[in-house]
Amino acid sequence: MEVFAVPDIPEIEPGDDLAALIDERVDLREGDVLTVASTVVSKAEGRGADLSDFDPGARAHDIAERIGEIAGERKDPRFAQAVLEESEELVMAAPFILAVTHFGHITVNAGIDRSNVPGADLLLLPEDPSASAQRLSDALGVPVVVTDTSGRPFRQGQRGVALGWAGISAMRDWRGEHDREGRELTATVEAVVDELAAATNLVTGEGDDGRPVAVVRDWDFGDHDSHDDLFRDRDGDLVRQALDDFEYDPD
Amino acid sequence: MEVFAVPDIPEIEPGDDLAALIDERVDLREGDVLTVASTVVSKAEGRGADLSDFDPGARAHDIAERIGEIAGERKDPRFAQAVLEESEELVMAAPFILAVTHFGHITVNAGIDRSNVPGADLLLLPEDPSASAQRLSDALGVPVVVTDTSGRPFRQGQRGVALGWAGISAMRDWRGEHDREGRELTATVEAVVDELAAATNLVTGEGDDGRPVAVVRDWDFGDHDSHDDLFRDRDGDLVRQALDDFEYDPD
Repeated sequence: MEVFAVPDIPEIEPGDDLAALIDERVDLREGDVLTVASTVVSKAEGRGADLSDFDPGARAHDIAERIGEIAGERKDPRFAQAVLEESEELVMAAPFILAVTHFGHITVNAGIDRSNVPGADLLLLPEDPSASAQRLSDALGVPVVVTDTSGRPFRQGQRGVALGWAGISAMRDWRGEHDREGRELTATVEAVVDELAAATNLVTGEGDDGRPVAVVRDWDFGDHDSHDDLFRDRDGDLVRQALDDFEYDPD
Repeated sequence: MEVFAVPDIPEIEPGDDLAALIDERVDLREGDVLTVASTVVSKAEGRGADLSDFDPGARAHDIAERIGEIAGERKDPRFAQAVLEESEELVMAAPFILAVTHFGHITVNAGIDRSNVPGADLLLLPEDPSASAQRLSDALGVPVVVTDTSGRPFRQGQRGVALGWAGISAMRDWRGEHDREGRELTATVEAVVDELAAATNLVTGEGDDGRPVAVVRDWDFGDHDSHDDLFRDRDGDLVRQALDDFEYDPD
């Protein structure tokens, strides 16, 4: 398969027709999968926001105070309020906020970006990344994965992950198939949308040559079972249950 | 960049010269990165084992009993003993064993494979995957990443991950660089070896056409800071701390 970034995507403004901007810059073919960074989706969808848009309630004040005490510097309760409004629930409130977004993704600060937003304090994640992917897929005629980069337990650093997808299933399910010695595969469900996000993150980069859109060409999902349950719910996630019980102690 | 599987790798036997078998099947070029599934590295290194090789101690009996009670079926304490011997410590013992391998990777059952081993009950992970990668890299003249597939908290399914690497840094560090609006990037350290493992897992597949070796061609690490700290230690991992305190309650 081939993986390449779409060149010369301009800085995206609210209301921009992202599909048209992509379509002008790449000849998509049948079989291509397009990955689009959530930052440009959010910008096109007008998801920039200012801290002054958020009126912190008691819980936001508590959280900001607690994180601030641990960090030894004042934290803005308006930011905590923004995270609360973007979250279905919190997995952890301190020493940082680990939140479940309304669409099920678990990430620090509900994925709110404070570094990459011309003319706004904050950039919120797309409200429904799979709906965003569907609109782009309908316009462009290929499967689309809306991506972000995210840290993870156990391993340092960040890697590309899928937030939403359309025209492709999230998971390739090998269970019930057989290895080449004839033994049945028992526990292999492959999160292909995350792997596609990771693959394209290798070529899209960060920083001053950021290229937020990429194409995976000549990759074949193959003839396998599939499903779309990418995000674990609480019942199926012992780590989440353990974090619910966890009290952070800085000493 | 291009990503492709090396064709026709045969079933690997203990003592096989894996580098020679790869070299016969692909013309590697400068700039290529080779990924090699830990299963074939383990097979070549004679890491197959039988349950009868393991003499379960009291702790292995306890763990097997506890997991067996939860699962409602007897569990073999020899397998628990194998996991203990392959582990530096356990993060969780039930309802499944989540272990830290001697080289720092956190995974279920210390990565011991029970499904993919002709002529043996078990296949252990390579003892030191980065040393294995170094030997292959020295023989083949390109960077090598030894890979596995692994589940993860918060998200369903498995994806490719790096266990060891040589000739390449694990992490691409963008901190201190700037985005295209001139703002400094603050928190971006990219786990490129995991992304390379994920990218190649899309083409290597599982099952009866398993292709354990793949090439990433024309990918550029670029001029960035780098480091090799892929595996979090306990102090830097709140999830691991939370799991230490966690008592699984099946009711």
